[in-house]
Amino acid sequence: MTLPVVKAGIVGATGYSGAELLRLLKEHPQAEVTVVTSRSLAGTRLDQEFPSLRGQTDLVFSEPTAEALAACDVVFYATPHGVAMSQAREVLEAGTRIIDLSADFRIQDTQLWSEWYGMEHACPDILKEAVYGLPEMYRDDIRKARVVGNPGCYPTAVTLGLAPLLKAGFVDVDTLIADSKSGASGAGRGAKVGTLFCEVAEDFKAYGATGHRHLPEIAQNLDALAGTETDVTFVPHLLPMVRGIETTLYANLKSEALDADLQALYEQAYCDEPFVDMMPAGSHPSTGMVRGINQCRMALHRQGPKRVIVLSVIDNLIKGASGQAIQNMNLMFGLDETAGLMAGPVWP
Amino acid sequence: MTLPVVKAGIVGATGYSGAELLRLLKEHPQAEVTVVTSRSLAGTRLDQEFPSLRGQTDLVFSEPTAEALAACDVVFYATPHGVAMSQAREVLEAGTRIIDLSADFRIQDTQLWSEWYGMEHACPDILKEAVYGLPEMYRDDIRKARVVGNPGCYPTAVTLGLAPLLKAGFVDVDTLIADSKSGASGAGRGAKVGTLFCEVAEDFKAYGATGHRHLPEIAQNLDALAGTETDVTFVPHLLPMVRGIETTLYANLKSEALDADLQALYEQAYCDEPFVDMMPAGSHPSTGMVRGINQCRMALHRQGPKRVIVLSVIDNLIKGASGQAIQNMNLMFGLDETAGLMAGPVWP
Amino acid sequence: MTLPVVKAGIVGATGYSGAELLRLLKEHPQAEVTVVTSRSLAGTRLDQEFPSLRGQTDLVFSEPTAEALAACDVVFYATPHGVAMSQAREVLEAGTRIIDLSADFRIQDTQLWSEWYGMEHACPDILKEAVYGLPEMYRDDIRKARVVGNPGCYPTAVTLGLAPLLKAGFVDVDTLIADSKSGASGAGRGAKVGTLFCEVAEDFKAYGATGHRHLPEIAQNLDALAGTETDVTFVPHLLPMVRGIETTLYANLKSEALDADLQALYEQAYCDEPFVDMMPAGSHPSTGMVRGINQCRMALHRQGPKRVIVLSVIDNLIKGASGQAIQNMNLMFGLDETAGLMAGPVWP
Amino acid sequence: MTLPVVKAGIVGATGYSGAELLRLLKEHPQAEVTVVTSRSLAGTRLDQEFPSLRGQTDLVFSEPTAEALAACDVVFYATPHGVAMSQAREVLEAGTRIIDLSADFRIQDTQLWSEWYGMEHACPDILKEAVYGLPEMYRDDIRKARVVGNPGCYPTAVTLGLAPLLKAGFVDVDTLIADSKSGASGAGRGAKVGTLFCEVAEDFKAYGATGHRHLPEIAQNLDALAGTETDVTFVPHLLPMVRGIETTLYANLKSEALDADLQALYEQAYCDEPFVDMMPAGSHPSTGMVRGINQCRMALHRQGPKRVIVLSVIDNLIKGASGQAIQNMNLMFGLDETAGLMAGPVWP
Repeated sequence: MTLPVVKAGIVGATGYSGAELLRLLKEHPQAEVTVVTSRSLAGTRLDQEFPSLRGQTDLVFSEPTAEALAACDVVFYATPHGVAMSQAREVLEAGTRIIDLSADFRIQDTQLWSEWYGMEHACPDILKEAVYGLPEMYRDDIRKARVVGNPGCYPTAVTLGLAPLLKAGFVDVDTLIADSKSGASGAGRGAKVGTLFCEVAEDFKAYGATGHRHLPEIAQNLDALAGTETDVTFVPHLLPMVRGIETTLYANLKSEALDADLQALYEQAYCDEPFVDMMPAGSHPSTGMVRGINQCRMALHRQGPKRVIVLSVIDNLIKGASGQAIQNMNLMFGLDETAGLMAGPVWP
Repeated sequence: MTLPVVKAGIVGATGYSGAELLRLLKEHPQAEVTVVTSRSLAGTRLDQEFPSLRGQTDLVFSEPTAEALAACDVVFYATPHGVAMSQAREVLEAGTRIIDLSADFRIQDTQLWSEWYGMEHACPDILKEAVYGLPEMYRDDIRKARVVGNPGCYPTAVTLGLAPLLKAGFVDVDTLIADSKSGASGAGRGAKVGTLFCEVAEDFKAYGATGHRHLPEIAQNLDALAGTETDVTFVPHLLPMVRGIETTLYANLKSEALDADLQALYEQAYCDEPFVDMMPAGSHPSTGMVRGINQCRMALHRQGPKRVIVLSVIDNLIKGASGQAIQNMNLMFGLDETAGLMAGPVWP
Repeated sequence: MTLPVVKAGIVGATGYSGAELLRLLKEHPQAEVTVVTSRSLAGTRLDQEFPSLRGQTDLVFSEPTAEALAACDVVFYATPHGVAMSQAREVLEAGTRIIDLSADFRIQDTQLWSEWYGMEHACPDILKEAVYGLPEMYRDDIRKARVVGNPGCYPTAVTLGLAPLLKAGFVDVDTLIADSKSGASGAGRGAKVGTLFCEVAEDFKAYGATGHRHLPEIAQNLDALAGTETDVTFVPHLLPMVRGIETTLYANLKSEALDADLQALYEQAYCDEPFVDMMPAGSHPSTGMVRGINQCRMALHRQGPKRVIVLSVIDNLIKGASGQAIQNMNLMFGLDETAGLMAGPVWP
Repeated sequence: MTLPVVKAGIVGATGYSGAELLRLLKEHPQAEVTVVTSRSLAGTRLDQEFPSLRGQTDLVFSEPTAEALAACDVVFYATPHGVAMSQAREVLEAGTRIIDLSADFRIQDTQLWSEWYGMEHACPDILKEAVYGLPEMYRDDIRKARVVGNPGCYPTAVTLGLAPLLKAGFVDVDTLIADSKSGASGAGRGAKVGTLFCEVAEDFKAYGATGHRHLPEIAQNLDALAGTETDVTFVPHLLPMVRGIETTLYANLKSEALDADLQALYEQAYCDEPFVDMMPAGSHPSTGMVRGINQCRMALHRQGPKRVIVLSVIDNLIKGASGQAIQNMNLMFGLDETAGLMAGPVWP
């Protein structure tokens, strides 16, 4: 019996999340990358641009034309903000579905989006039907979606880490703090002085401490989980490493929740989730434990009378980008949600 | 005119903070290392153990005898916990002063100390006269001290970062959070699997999230600054780099302080401090900005209606250990506080 | 149709190459790890020791008894030198085959072996039948072998890099130089000061410059290829990174070979090899191009009138250890040589 | 007694070697940076561009005008190739001397220079009087020079490593091989994809294997030392670290030199050199042993009947650039050659 195969196109295959889409989809039993587009590299073999893929692919970059993308069942946008929304209508009209790894379809409030991203939204109507691609929150909607806004890397780690507490109503919603740290691949592959090796190695710092683009996305998620407006403080930091996000989350327990079995709460919340691993009490998840895989691992600690601490790690390029995008594709096309996503982490 | 020279001994010169003491004291205009002790290396030239010091020194390791140390004006202990307190009485009786880089003389509550360090304190009477060696808090006492307990690396970054807010009474003292990240040199030079290159590189994690030895030291400092009992949550993390600590501090402003000019508060608090640099509003200090130097740099941010964020960085081996120890020595011997400590950071 | 499945045991699964065996065999369509042994961890779940494997395995460490291993079709030894040879006879008598990732079965000259490894060989008769597991040299013998001595990491990169030149008789065999650089995982997972993060990061050095254990193994291979005694100089270096070996090889061309098309020579030599990639003329292979995969990539350059330079890279834990071991298993059990080994590299 | 002070200008202070010039000159007892120029940053405080220098300097960037530079005793050019030679005549006519850290004044053969650097030389007459700034070769000429071409980083490590063997006539001059490895700071501070953190970390490769710009400079030096035309093969490699060059040098001993005491040869050659350290027999110098200091450390090994191996390490930004430039300044202005250059290495 031959399995049906999803034909996938990738716009923006020359960056880090594009490269991970290629690696993961190559191992996928029911998907195939049929189109990779690049205006500047059209006509060039993919493995000429990425020698690491020699022997893995015969793909050739093509122009990002409507025809090329129309031949795909789904198109992944691994592009800067603004590209996906400018092409979305045409692609959808051709019957092709969209999974956008940029921020174009993540935030429903277009005015808020414009404030943080500095441009008008090109298609508010399509945005309205787009589904936020965090399966652990919106699995059923994703199954039926034509357009999925794949979550940002920080919001994924933060949201999964706080969801059980917020849904249970156990914490004061104005005491939420997310201290997040990311590897340098999160900054993309553009040539900037700030992400040169000599500027990032042996160095560590916070950035965007007065407000980062992922803040409104995080707030949107936490508000939805809490069923009320939350107040979250979010500070991202740049790690001297390539991949991985660790987020340390702090919240104050309500007095009625001080004696709740939080470990059990989390274990129940995630026991059926294939890509969230609640570790045993006392654990300290490390980014190395999820390197190269579509997993979020977390652990829970207490300090003092009322503070709860959640540690949450993901690979920013996988569960924080390309792996989650494929998880969404699996849902959208009725495949096994874990298809192509169960290989083990590369360690050390 | 010949300047008086302080004769210094180092017990434990084979570790990382010992190496930094040697480097810094070599450049000091009024101090000289005359004794380095090591039981196992007695008789060996220092530069045979540390080839990086070839051409820098003719010192030879000697046995850690009372006689050897008695010939020094001051002895630095860069040893594991428990060593300094076992030798302190004898050393002091010989008229030699002590700067202990371990935890033996940092915490006044001996019972609390025993709980965290797993041993009885050997000399509570000497502990009682010991001064906590954070010059920005106890400068005058340090000047007269026979024994200085040099602060831990994390407590230095946390305490300096919160001091102005606490002294001003501007924050709720049960909302304090210190999310701290340290380079691997903080774990010392002992051979352990957990600090092997392949375990630390390309990895990041929290540790001790339910309670770390530096927590009672931090609490002791913050209580003293606030003049009341505080409740601080402290989570340390291990960075894939050699040196540097960054601490991101969170606190809630009291309603009466919501409109205070916090930037001005910090600038005034530290304008006369040679080793604390309040950066301009909007800055993000990085550990690379203090690499190899005795500086704490910090910046202040606001998020949401009442949360204040302080970013504080130090080199854990310098302002967090050996540099601060020399700053204390300068105070104890009436030298210029900045002597030997004003060279610039090694960047990149 | 159900495929036959090879039952594999791993002795020494707690080190880095053991971990890679587990990761790769999990994805193998016709192999299964049924036994992992550890004296100290017997009874412990594998994913308790390696949290990165949570959700990947239900294996439990067992005692390394003869019975446990006898139930396997093949046993991989990822152990220090000396272990495999001490257990080999018993294992073989039970009908189980052996792939030894240590040096016990690599060098046929037992006296030479003893000089470099500091012990007597425990079973010279078994050594005599053992096959050196470099498929590109001994593919047919490996197919029939009961015992395979899996090559060292450096010898793999060096031998594949020089083989075409030596077989063609194009170079003076006393002008061979191998300047090799390895990531720190090559030094294993033992706790040693020399491989601590703070000693390896931001540092680089040669070691063993007067003679390293891999030299006799390299010489054995090159002699066999050249059909005469060669004289090779080999200097290994330690890189501040986790995985990867790069070897830069130098040789002088014989005058009759000065005008030969060396690029074509290499392309022909390796065109049918699934795990050796001769890159286009002018290329510079990097270790990142083979990270996590069973590939050796190489390129060829000329400088001056007669010098040829070959650049050769592998992942020391894969083509230099665990991947090559599985390639050998595939051959020994009549499986497709590439089974389980064709996933793409993890980049960046 | 007040010591005379050299007034120094720096053109190109925004790069890595410019930053090191600033750090080192600040500690120099007889030099002072009075001018730093930058067209784009004119009017900006230096410590605004480099927050790591806060508290270290009050300098303000000025326009690179002839007047500004004429007020200096010496101008350091830490600029891309082509800048120094375009300004040299005017600067010299104002009586100011020049130390050029770029390649403009290193190679006497202007035609050869043009081939490698892709431009015509702007002032062959000034080039003719320029002295190659390797004090160990041309100390007396440097003392009298108006213009010094500061050596490249690779050529410094290679030349010092081979000098004693070549001057003694002990090696076959067509067997010279330099396998060199450099940290990423050698590639400068320009924003390029190839030197992004994610491209350099956990990766290693050769580059320029068919010919690198430093090859003609190396050949010029070796020819001069040997007194005859040499044939050297040079392959540079990029290390995943910030600073440091290690060069492993190979040569064949002439038959009459096979029994010579090479260790003694090197020790004698360098016993009076303050910045070259011949380590004891059997040593393996590491780049960490010279981090941040103006030292070249080396060691010598033998393999096989006639091959000699020299290991040579420097900090590419110090003895390979800014430190050597200051060593040259000291010579040019009659100061102690070691002034300002004797601080110890920053380790770890």
